[in-house]
Amino acid sequence: MLHAVIMAGGIGARFWPKSRRNNPKQVIDLLGEGPMIQQTLRRISDIVPLENRWIVTNQEQADLFVKLIPELADARFIIEPMGRNTAPAIGLAAVRLLKEDPDAVMLVLPADHRIGDHYAFRSCLLTAAEIVKDSEALATIGIEPTRPETGYGYIQIDRSQPQIRENVFPVKTFAEKPNPQTAKLFLESGEFFWNSGMFIWRADSIMRHIHDNLPDWYSGLQNIRVALDTDKEKEVAQRVFHSNKGISIDYGVMENAQDVIIIKGNFGWSDVGSWDEVWRVRDHDAQGNALEGEAITVDASDNLILAKDKMIAVLGLSKLAVVETDDVILICPLAEAQRVRDIVVALEKKNQLKYL
Amino acid sequence: MLHAVIMAGGIGARFWPKSRRNNPKQVIDLLGEGPMIQQTLRRISDIVPLENRWIVTNQEQADLFVKLIPELADARFIIEPMGRNTAPAIGLAAVRLLKEDPDAVMLVLPADHRIGDHYAFRSCLLTAAEIVKDSEALATIGIEPTRPETGYGYIQIDRSQPQIRENVFPVKTFAEKPNPQTAKLFLESGEFFWNSGMFIWRADSIMRHIHDNLPDWYSGLQNIRVALDTDKEKEVAQRVFHSNKGISIDYGVMENAQDVIIIKGNFGWSDVGSWDEVWRVRDHDAQGNALEGEAITVDASDNLILAKDKMIAVLGLSKLAVVETDDVILICPLAEAQRVRDIVVALEKKNQLKYL
Repeated sequence: MLHAVIMAGGIGARFWPKSRRNNPKQVIDLLGEGPMIQQTLRRISDIVPLENRWIVTNQEQADLFVKLIPELADARFIIEPMGRNTAPAIGLAAVRLLKEDPDAVMLVLPADHRIGDHYAFRSCLLTAAEIVKDSEALATIGIEPTRPETGYGYIQIDRSQPQIRENVFPVKTFAEKPNPQTAKLFLESGEFFWNSGMFIWRADSIMRHIHDNLPDWYSGLQNIRVALDTDKEKEVAQRVFHSNKGISIDYGVMENAQDVIIIKGNFGWSDVGSWDEVWRVRDHDAQGNALEGEAITVDASDNLILAKDKMIAVLGLSKLAVVETDDVILICPLAEAQRVRDIVVALEKKNQLKYL
Repeated sequence: MLHAVIMAGGIGARFWPKSRRNNPKQVIDLLGEGPMIQQTLRRISDIVPLENRWIVTNQEQADLFVKLIPELADARFIIEPMGRNTAPAIGLAAVRLLKEDPDAVMLVLPADHRIGDHYAFRSCLLTAAEIVKDSEALATIGIEPTRPETGYGYIQIDRSQPQIRENVFPVKTFAEKPNPQTAKLFLESGEFFWNSGMFIWRADSIMRHIHDNLPDWYSGLQNIRVALDTDKEKEVAQRVFHSNKGISIDYGVMENAQDVIIIKGNFGWSDVGSWDEVWRVRDHDAQGNALEGEAITVDASDNLILAKDKMIAVLGLSKLAVVETDDVILICPLAEAQRVRDIVVALEKKNQLKYL
């Protein structure tokens, strides 16, 4: 059976001031299309039955999600005792799914992606699920790059082996976020695709790979499996997560695994990771400004201006993010949007809790 | 007798969004020291008797001033029927003063100057008044330049004639706002001083000069003089101002007059004409940021940040003006502060009256 496993940990400090401890990025309407986690769930609702829709996050955020977006109460929550990156979160989900469904096929989907063409997206997932359901293959979705982006990881296809079917290739290597020069080479090569962070595999396949590559986590996850649905479940999970180091699925498993395949995805994807991506994805006026709320620009171009209560006037400035919330106004260059978390760190140091 | 004539026309579109039609620049607390017109009045209160303190402005603003700053009700208002620049405003004041006091000595003071050393300022005014009270001389106050400023007019002293007394010189020429190269030459010469726009003269002296240089205005002002304190006063003044063209005192009188002297003023003067000057005059933190209200800066220097209701966070940006009011947030480079009025023009075009 097909299961959707939506990865929804993290509060998204890069979306401060909209993201807060009690208002994580997943529930914010960053693009004017509704909260991204809601969109993510809705996108797969045609292909995954209700009881197979899972959200992996911590307890605090699970409570917030349901409180802020009542529709999410229909999903089932898998609770991470603490953030330990993607490999343990995926392993925890695999163990939970296997208890109910030994043939479970997992669609691992980050909660904060934007997809332009939902039909093509679902078709791509179904193709992947079809391929992996009777094999041990680990499938990833690779996005054809449109610019020499340095903010994503890349996956190289293996040209020395035969193509598997249309838009499906064997994988040669995973590459970390490149420098600008390397990113340009990747783009020109035609062999490199953006690593979307979406994966499709049988739950038992990924457990086998965790066994081979992350034996400590494998044995911890086995302990959790035994405790599932007992009154010791929480305590055991807590102990296992506490005593093992966090690691990503890419680094911990994918980069070492054989039998990894890539499905070429072409459905208007973006990883909405910071304000510059929000600017990129939103509609622009003739000067390239992406505006929400009341704003006026004079000799100002390519800005992201999200007004709320006040009218925002920008004169003679370009490529800025200006974000207004109930209590904060953020101003920074779009090119520095990754550093917004530095403000969060500075506020923590000053103990300015009300703005966190 | 000594009279203070405070020139307070104009709403100051360059201080938008703080300055509005119903909140002109004179009544705004731009520097955190109280409204500038109030400061201007208080500065001369030790040397000018209450009944000799005059404010020249239009009726609408006079009403606003008294409503917003009750203390101003103690001053006497001279109402310009419409804005016609400084020469007619000064002529109107001279006519009014002469009716009460044929020996009136006028201190003509713009309402929007900032003075650091009040004692030195008053001492300078008294020196000037002492010199002009028994002569026909027109005195100006010249500020020793500290940078090659292109935003001010300059006055050149006449080295070919003997110095009049300590810090008092005959004037050779008035120079318009220079380009950067010329401003540098002015600064290096030691002969050029900033034109402060402050003047000291007998009321009958300036009327004689208006007679010689602006005969149409002179005869109009004579008509107003005859109508003063009759029920025709308003109508006559309206007609005279309507039918004559506006002209500045500098261009209309000072540049052509003989017997002009300059008093060197050294009392921490600035003409607070736009947001960049507000930044310059205010206190700075270690990164050169001038802050009011709640603000946090990360890797940001030399900014003017005036927060009101919200916390303003600025990351990775320098030399910006960020000004928050009840309903607006302005963001522009300090170097473009003169162009803030372009926003006002754009709002007028869009008929966005509530922001004007």
